[in-house]
Amino acid sequence: MRELLDFLLFDWLKVETLCARPRFAEHSRETFSAVLDTCERIARERFAPLNRLVDAQEPQFDGQRVTLPEGVGAALAAYVESGMLAAAQDMDAGGMQLPCTVEMAGNAFFSKASVGLSAYAMLTSGNANLLMAHGTPRQREVFARRELAGEWFGTMCLSEPQAGSSLSDITTRAELDDAADPLGPRYCLRGHKMWISGGEHELTPNIVHLVLAKIPGPDGKLVPGTRGISLFIVPKWRVDAQGQLTGVRNDVQLAGLNHKLGYRGTTNCLLNFGEREGAVGYLVGQPGEGLKCMFHMMNEARIGVGTGAVMLGMAGYEASLEYARQRPQGRAMGPAGKDAAAPQIPIIEHADVRRMLLAQKSYVEGGLALELYCARLVDELRTGDAAAAQALLDVLIPIAKSWPSEWCLEANSLAIQVLGGYGYTRDFPVEQYWRDNRLNMIHEGTHGIQALDLLGRKVVQQGGASLAALAAHVQATVERAMPSDWAPQAKQLAAALAQLGAATQQAWRTGEPAEALANAVPYLQAFGHTVVAWLWLDVALASPGNTAAAQGRQAAARYFFAYELPKTAAWLDVVARRESVCRDMRPDWF
Amino acid sequence: MRELLDFLLFDWLKVETLCARPRFAEHSRETFSAVLDTCERIARERFAPLNRLVDAQEPQFDGQRVTLPEGVGAALAAYVESGMLAAAQDMDAGGMQLPCTVEMAGNAFFSKASVGLSAYAMLTSGNANLLMAHGTPRQREVFARRELAGEWFGTMCLSEPQAGSSLSDITTRAELDDAADPLGPRYCLRGHKMWISGGEHELTPNIVHLVLAKIPGPDGKLVPGTRGISLFIVPKWRVDAQGQLTGVRNDVQLAGLNHKLGYRGTTNCLLNFGEREGAVGYLVGQPGEGLKCMFHMMNEARIGVGTGAVMLGMAGYEASLEYARQRPQGRAMGPAGKDAAAPQIPIIEHADVRRMLLAQKSYVEGGLALELYCARLVDELRTGDAAAAQALLDVLIPIAKSWPSEWCLEANSLAIQVLGGYGYTRDFPVEQYWRDNRLNMIHEGTHGIQALDLLGRKVVQQGGASLAALAAHVQATVERAMPSDWAPQAKQLAAALAQLGAATQQAWRTGEPAEALANAVPYLQAFGHTVVAWLWLDVALASPGNTAAAQGRQAAARYFFAYELPKTAAWLDVVARRESVCRDMRPDWF
Repeated sequence: MRELLDFLLFDWLKVETLCARPRFAEHSRETFSAVLDTCERIARERFAPLNRLVDAQEPQFDGQRVTLPEGVGAALAAYVESGMLAAAQDMDAGGMQLPCTVEMAGNAFFSKASVGLSAYAMLTSGNANLLMAHGTPRQREVFARRELAGEWFGTMCLSEPQAGSSLSDITTRAELDDAADPLGPRYCLRGHKMWISGGEHELTPNIVHLVLAKIPGPDGKLVPGTRGISLFIVPKWRVDAQGQLTGVRNDVQLAGLNHKLGYRGTTNCLLNFGEREGAVGYLVGQPGEGLKCMFHMMNEARIGVGTGAVMLGMAGYEASLEYARQRPQGRAMGPAGKDAAAPQIPIIEHADVRRMLLAQKSYVEGGLALELYCARLVDELRTGDAAAAQALLDVLIPIAKSWPSEWCLEANSLAIQVLGGYGYTRDFPVEQYWRDNRLNMIHEGTHGIQALDLLGRKVVQQGGASLAALAAHVQATVERAMPSDWAPQAKQLAAALAQLGAATQQAWRTGEPAEALANAVPYLQAFGHTVVAWLWLDVALASPGNTAAAQGRQAAARYFFAYELPKTAAWLDVVARRESVCRDMRPDWF
Repeated sequence: MRELLDFLLFDWLKVETLCARPRFAEHSRETFSAVLDTCERIARERFAPLNRLVDAQEPQFDGQRVTLPEGVGAALAAYVESGMLAAAQDMDAGGMQLPCTVEMAGNAFFSKASVGLSAYAMLTSGNANLLMAHGTPRQREVFARRELAGEWFGTMCLSEPQAGSSLSDITTRAELDDAADPLGPRYCLRGHKMWISGGEHELTPNIVHLVLAKIPGPDGKLVPGTRGISLFIVPKWRVDAQGQLTGVRNDVQLAGLNHKLGYRGTTNCLLNFGEREGAVGYLVGQPGEGLKCMFHMMNEARIGVGTGAVMLGMAGYEASLEYARQRPQGRAMGPAGKDAAAPQIPIIEHADVRRMLLAQKSYVEGGLALELYCARLVDELRTGDAAAAQALLDVLIPIAKSWPSEWCLEANSLAIQVLGGYGYTRDFPVEQYWRDNRLNMIHEGTHGIQALDLLGRKVVQQGGASLAALAAHVQATVERAMPSDWAPQAKQLAAALAQLGAATQQAWRTGEPAEALANAVPYLQAFGHTVVAWLWLDVALASPGNTAAAQGRQAAARYFFAYELPKTAAWLDVVARRESVCRDMRPDWF
């Protein structure tokens, strides 16, 4: 994977050109490479050996304490030592001031080695970055800086048992206690938060929960909708004005651990806030702007989830490739069939096994290109042409989140299939990757939510400006490809893009959201395949020559155009004619 | 599900017309219904309550004995009492002389309630039926009759650690000891058998292994290929000439249990034969005809696996449907978007949730129609127009095995998605169904093997006679549909069928197996979708009217034609142009 990563970062995305910008002026290709080296090594030495263990020994709760398997704390300490928690932060805040692209690439090694362990770090980093952007100076000092140093870990508390996708329905209440607390306006919180990853553990002496809650109006009622949502810091253990632990437990209790299909290395919790005296929370930002603050970090969070999905796919691809090279079974298909007396061949020699490996390669390497491309846009957003980057990110983020969640899961299923019966056992890692990856279509906005965001909002906003911006980029790649051997693929991509644009128009022709959005998921799928085809064409153009790596990328690109892109026609067909069979279906007909 | 089953059996397949045939003359719709009632009740009362337990407490081996969870023995005893082990056997052999169609329908309830428990029964029944067909009278009396009575359970021992899909490479040896043993020519077996379901347990006082092994030639060498394979009865405990247990253990040892992703209710074993004095085995049928005997039961075995996949899909569909009807979340999409102050609605009201439910319905009910249609053909094979039935079964059996393995697995993934985070936990059953179902693309001939069988053999044999027979049946449904509201779907199906036929021709145009078969799996997928579209159209034509059930079936049929059948174009495209990217890929390019 490292060779691919270097190719994508340096040859394709040319990240070292970012060093010409003031923010990254202290960096060079060498410092970027050193970061990748460190991440690769720690991930291999400290995370990977624990990955099966954290699955087999899932977190236990005895009613008092949560127990994690031996070694988890040391592995995370090694991560902390790498400095990656503060990878993107300013150097004078103790950070490395790395581009987002390099940060994502470095973290990819950890996701690949153990997605369940990585989550503690990713959540902490996201939490701290949010506070660095929206917190008061004291909140940054007391909470964010400790998180960036790995002293305390953090969480994001959004969902509630009765409110998952529908955040506007959260009922956690926050009532003002003291507007003048040095740590920020102090509130008393009461409510239940569900699906909280890293919500309880004893890895660090405190946990910084970022909690969405509603401040009741003068009538004591909660404001309907997302307008009423505010954001609070709720530490597990209370702190004094200087941020020192007081030894007093805040009123946040673990009600229970969720027992999951996969991703078991990460504790996942139902937390009760304020069952007794009320949980102390400090307002972050302005009242009613909680979602806005939370979504400030959304690009990175969704790229992070997408990268996690890609890396699970990559891990399965590598495991099944290694197996296919070594496992003898069956014989070559000659003009007269097979000769049973001939020696067996490694299964990688069978065309269908190569098909399963090429499919995986096209999904996981295409997915990695997608995530790094989006991360590169985040860097552009911060240090370059922000408006142009924002337009592209608007339509690409739902894809970065959803596409690998679906197709790198499919890659994991193919990895199992390559191993056959062995792949179905726990003696090989591929079944765990498949279980772990199944989460990614659910958390951080389900597939359905991403689809509504894309077709309901992003492609229509500002008269379709974001979609037009993407189309211009796709068109530019098409034009570069036309004079090359890739002309057939370029034409195919141009046609797919045109069909996507037409379907977008047709979906909204009647102006009825219910009609347009009934097929938002097939639209999302077609959009994703079109985007990844574009990136594969772009990567192929950047991979001329006859080296094995270049030939492999060219073959994966050809595979994607031959086997995958043609799938978009069927998806877009129902979108374009606003197929109503799902809308018309009545609950009692099932 | 019962209403659907009754509709398919009695209204669509008209199974009671079989009672006009001598073999089924003692039966009637009432006796068939009584069988279904019994199966439904025992499955619900005895199997379903254990399904999570057999997953959570997988079989344990302490080096001496295998332990299964409490209650498994009693549940299987209840199955035995139902008489279903001998459902298809002659009445004067203690059987029920039921049509295969009714047997499969009855067993479907058990697969749905607990696929892991059911496997012991299905394997025993298949084993016994094989012996009833190919064994000597004494073998039938001693082994098969005891299995049919549920006294002993049975297994099928085909694979070896080094030979899974490639059975021609098995190395288990059988050397003649006594040609005149009353139980059949007695051999001494030595070798290792892998993936043996039900290979060890203490549910019954003996286990009847049916073992494929090679008898060495005069030079002491094993004959290459499948020609050299013979079939043997190898009991776990030795028996005397009258079939009484002698108290002497045969030389068959459990080397270890496989620890699986799912399907954990069934022990899955590596068995060592003849590590000490050699395992006693009795030849079944003629030397060298072992595979032929084994494949005699192949139709039923593959329909059984397909039905199991369908039932896992059905179980997930029902669970997610129930959840979707009860779970409030979000609001209806009005012309002006959503009103956050309105009450929440059950998620079944959201078009995308209906899409996920309709997709599941179209997969699982279409899959059930497919399996029952094939079972009906098995009845035709035995008591009707055998040649016509054989032609259809030749091309339909690979589909009956593979299609539900893929698409009812997808149904299970959609069931998880409907439940969201809850679906990812072990508090709900849908994650287990998904894990259990993942086996079905692997065992009883992988997807790749089914695809080679279909495109490499079945559609080209006898000048394409089997494919032509299927096409004629599809065409007949198309013609019946043309004068109805279903004319658009009929035209669409006719076009898909024509494209399938053309792709078949194109694939073989050069006559090179390597070129034709490189895309055998996409061919299998397209073939499966075309077959299921045909069956949905046929089912829709048999479901006129405005009852909720009829409207539901009509909607599922419309869904399948709108969202699913169009997928075949992309699959067939690579087949027709003999796309070579996978064949051309070199191992070092990955």
